Amino acid sequence: MNSKRQPNTTATATAADFLMASRQCEIRNLEYFLQMGRLVQSVGNLVHGLQRERGATNLYLGSGCQRFARERSVILKENDQLAAIFRKALTDIQEDLTTHPVSSSLLGHIASALHSLDQLAGFRQKVAEQEAGVADATDWFCDTIHQLITVVFEAAETVAEPSIAGLLVAMVHVMNGKEYCGQERAAGSAGFSSGHFENALSRRMMHLVEAQERCFEVFVAFASEDSLALWQALRSHPRELEIERMRQKAVSVGPYKSLDREMADRWFNLMTDRMDDLKKIEDSVENAFHHRCVERYTEARHSLAHHETLLASLEQRNASTMPVLVVCDNGVDASTADAWAGDGQQSGRSIFDLVQEQTRRLRQMSEELQSAKEALEDRRTQEKAVLLLMEHRDISNDEAHRLLRKLAMDQGKRLPDVARALVSMAGVLG
Amino acid sequence: MNSKRQPNTTATATAADFLMASRQCEIRNLEYFLQMGRLVQSVGNLVHGLQRERGATNLYLGSGCQRFARERSVILKENDQLAAIFRKALTDIQEDLTTHPVSSSLLGHIASALHSLDQLAGFRQKVAEQEAGVADATDWFCDTIHQLITVVFEAAETVAEPSIAGLLVAMVHVMNGKEYCGQERAAGSAGFSSGHFENALSRRMMHLVEAQERCFEVFVAFASEDSLALWQALRSHPRELEIERMRQKAVSVGPYKSLDREMADRWFNLMTDRMDDLKKIEDSVENAFHHRCVERYTEARHSLAHHETLLASLEQRNASTMPVLVVCDNGVDASTADAWAGDGQQSGRSIFDLVQEQTRRLRQMSEELQSAKEALEDRRTQEKAVLLLMEHRDISNDEAHRLLRKLAMDQGKRLPDVARALVSMAGVLG
Repeated sequence: MNSKRQPNTTATATAADFLMASRQCEIRNLEYFLQMGRLVQSVGNLVHGLQRERGATNLYLGSGCQRFARERSVILKENDQLAAIFRKALTDIQEDLTTHPVSSSLLGHIASALHSLDQLAGFRQKVAEQEAGVADATDWFCDTIHQLITVVFEAAETVAEPSIAGLLVAMVHVMNGKEYCGQERAAGSAGFSSGHFENALSRRMMHLVEAQERCFEVFVAFASEDSLALWQALRSHPRELEIERMRQKAVSVGPYKSLDREMADRWFNLMTDRMDDLKKIEDSVENAFHHRCVERYTEARHSLAHHETLLASLEQRNASTMPVLVVCDNGVDASTADAWAGDGQQSGRSIFDLVQEQTRRLRQMSEELQSAKEALEDRRTQEKAVLLLMEHRDISNDEAHRLLRKLAMDQGKRLPDVARALVSMAGVLG
Repeated sequence: MNSKRQPNTTATATAADFLMASRQCEIRNLEYFLQMGRLVQSVGNLVHGLQRERGATNLYLGSGCQRFARERSVILKENDQLAAIFRKALTDIQEDLTTHPVSSSLLGHIASALHSLDQLAGFRQKVAEQEAGVADATDWFCDTIHQLITVVFEAAETVAEPSIAGLLVAMVHVMNGKEYCGQERAAGSAGFSSGHFENALSRRMMHLVEAQERCFEVFVAFASEDSLALWQALRSHPRELEIERMRQKAVSVGPYKSLDREMADRWFNLMTDRMDDLKKIEDSVENAFHHRCVERYTEARHSLAHHETLLASLEQRNASTMPVLVVCDNGVDASTADAWAGDGQQSGRSIFDLVQEQTRRLRQMSEELQSAKEALEDRRTQEKAVLLLMEHRDISNDEAHRLLRKLAMDQGKRLPDVARALVSMAGVLG
C-alpha cells in the first residue's frame, strides 16, 4: 500500500482518517481481486484439463485400454503442469489469504480442493491397474471438479465491487454449465457406446441438459459483451442442431431398440468441440474480469490521490477553525445541515461533500451488488434444497434436482423461490 | 497470531496449510469482534449521553434558558469524555480496520459519525447564543445519533459467527428502539409543555411508538437470557401503564382541548427512567456479546492447537505415503471416497475427516448466520423503501414509514416483504 496515508499524528481518530481508510480498503479489495483473478484462471484451466482427462480415461477404460492410451498420456502430463500452476497461484496469494481475514469458508474449500487433487496420483494408479471402472472414474472426476468450481463460487462470495462480482458470477456459471456439458458427454458416451440408453441414463441426460440451461441463463444475465457474442456464435453453430438430434435419440430410444455404436465417437467429438468453445467463452469472461479490475484499480488510486491532496490542504486550513457542518446521509432534511454552517463553511462544505459522496457511492455499490449476491445465494439455496431432499427422501442428486424442478413447475414458481421455501420449511420442521 | 502455523517450506500450497488458514481466519475474526465489542460499547455510551444532552438542551431552550442550566453543563462535560473514549476506541482498532480489508462501508460510516461529532462544539455554541431552537436541536441530535447507530449496524454486517452476529443484531435494535423512545420523549415534551398536540405531532408520537415496537420485536428474537429478563421486568413495570395513559392523551386530545402543562415534567421523567432501563438492557447484551466472543475465541484456539499437533504428526507419517482419499462434501456417495482408500488409509482418513469436518462446520455456520443477516437486510431494505417513498412522493421520513406500514396492513403482508417488493419494483420502474 504505497499510497497508504499515515494516520494523523494526534492521538485521536479523525473523519479524514477513516474517509481515506474507506477508500484504501476499496483499493486493498481490488488488489486482492486481481490476485483472485489469477487463481480463478488457474482453476478454470485445471478444470478443463481434468474434464479432458475424464473423457480420455473413460474412452481408454471403455475400450479395454486399447484406444486413446497415447492421447491420454499427453493429457496426464499437461494436467500435472496445470495442477502445479494452480498450486503456484495459491502459494502466491497464500500470504494474503491467510493474514487477512478474508473468508474462512473460502479457505476451507481450497483445503478440500487441494486434498482432492492429492488423490489424483493414487487414482491414476488404480486406472493403470484397471481397478477402476468407467463409472468410478466419472464419479471421481466429477467430485474433484466440483471441489474446484466451489472454490470459485466461494471466491465470488468475497467480492464487494458490483461490476467485478457480476463477472465472477458469469464466470462461475459458465464453468458450472461447461461441467454439466462434460457430464452429459460422459453419460452420452456410455449410452451410445453400449448401443442403448437405460431409462435412468436417459433421465440423467435430461437432467444434465436442464442443469446446463439454468447455468447459462445466469451467465447471460451477467456476461461481458465479448463473451456474450461468443455465446451467441456457439448457439447458432450448426453443431448445436446435430447435438440436439442425438440428445433426442438418447432420451427417446429406450433400452430395447439399439443404436449404431459408431455414434459414440461422433457424440464425443461434438461435445468435446462444444466444451472447447465454452472454454473460450470462459477465457473471455476472465479477460473482461482482469481488465475491469485493472480499470477500477486505476480509478480508485487516482481518486484516492486526489482526495489526499484535497484533505491535506483542508486540514491545513482548518488547523484552527473546525468545519461546522453536519453529515446527514439518512434522508434528514439537509437544511438542518446548512443551519450550522459557520465560518468553516467553505472547508466544512468540502469535507462534508467528500464524506457524503463516499457514503452515497458505497450505498449505491451495495445496491448494485445485490443482484450478483442474489444469483450466488440462489445457487447456494438450491444446493441446500437438493441436499435436504436427498437426505429426507433418500434419493440421488439427479432425482432431487428433478423433484425440485417438478415442484417449481407444479406451483408455477421460480426454481430459487421453491428451493427457498423448501429450506425454510425444513428449518421450521426441524 | 502467536499460534500462526508457518506455511510448509515446500514451494506449493497444501491442504493442511489451508485447513489451518481457515481456522486461523476464524480466530482473526474473533479477535476483531472482541475489539469491535469495545467500540460498540463506547458508541452505546456516547449515544446515551447525547440523548441526555438532547433532553437537557430542549428543557433548557424550552424554558428560555432558565431551567436545567446546571444539570446540562454537567452532562456536556460527561459527553466530552464519552466522545474522547469513542475516539480512543477507534484509534485502538484503526490499525486493524485500515490494514485489513474489513468493510469500506463501515469505515465510510465511521467517517460520517466522526464528522458529525466534529460539529458538536459549534452546535453547542449556537445553543449558548440561543441561535438554535428546540426543533433544530432535536434534529441535530437525532441525525448525529443516527450516524453513530449506523456504525453499529455496519459493524454487525461484518460479523461471520452466528451467535455473535445475533447478539449484535439484538444490541443494535435495542439501541435503535431506545433512540425512538428518546425521540418520543422529545415529541411528548414539546406537546405537553405547550399544553396541546397538533395532529402532526400526534401522528409523530404514534409513528415513534410503532417504530419502537418493531425494534424491540427483533431484539427479543436475538436477545440473551439476562437481557430478556431485564426486558420483561421493564415491560411489567407500573411505569409502562402510566406512559401508556399519557400516550393516549397525546394522540387523542387534539389541538383544541388543552392539557395540564405540569404533565410535561412527569412525562420527561418517566421516559428518562425508561431510557435508563433500556440502557441497562443494552449493557447486558454488550456483556453477553463480550463473554460469547471470549468463549468462542478460547474454543477456537484450543481446537486450532489440537489440529496443529494432529496434522504435524500426520505429515511426518505421510512424508512418504500420500493419503489417498477423496474429499466429498457435495452429497456425492462417500463410497466413491472409500473406493480409493489405499495404504494411506489411516492417515488419509484422518486428514479427510479434518477437512470434511471443517467444511461441514462452516456450512452449518453460514446456515445459522442466515437469520441474523436477514434481520439486518430487512432493516436495510426498509430504509431503502422509506428513502424511495420520500423521494418519489416528496413526503417526510415519518410519513414514508406510515405509508409503508399502511401498505403492509392493506396487503396483509410482513413489513419487510412489502419493503422488498417496493424496492424491487422501483428497480424495474427505473
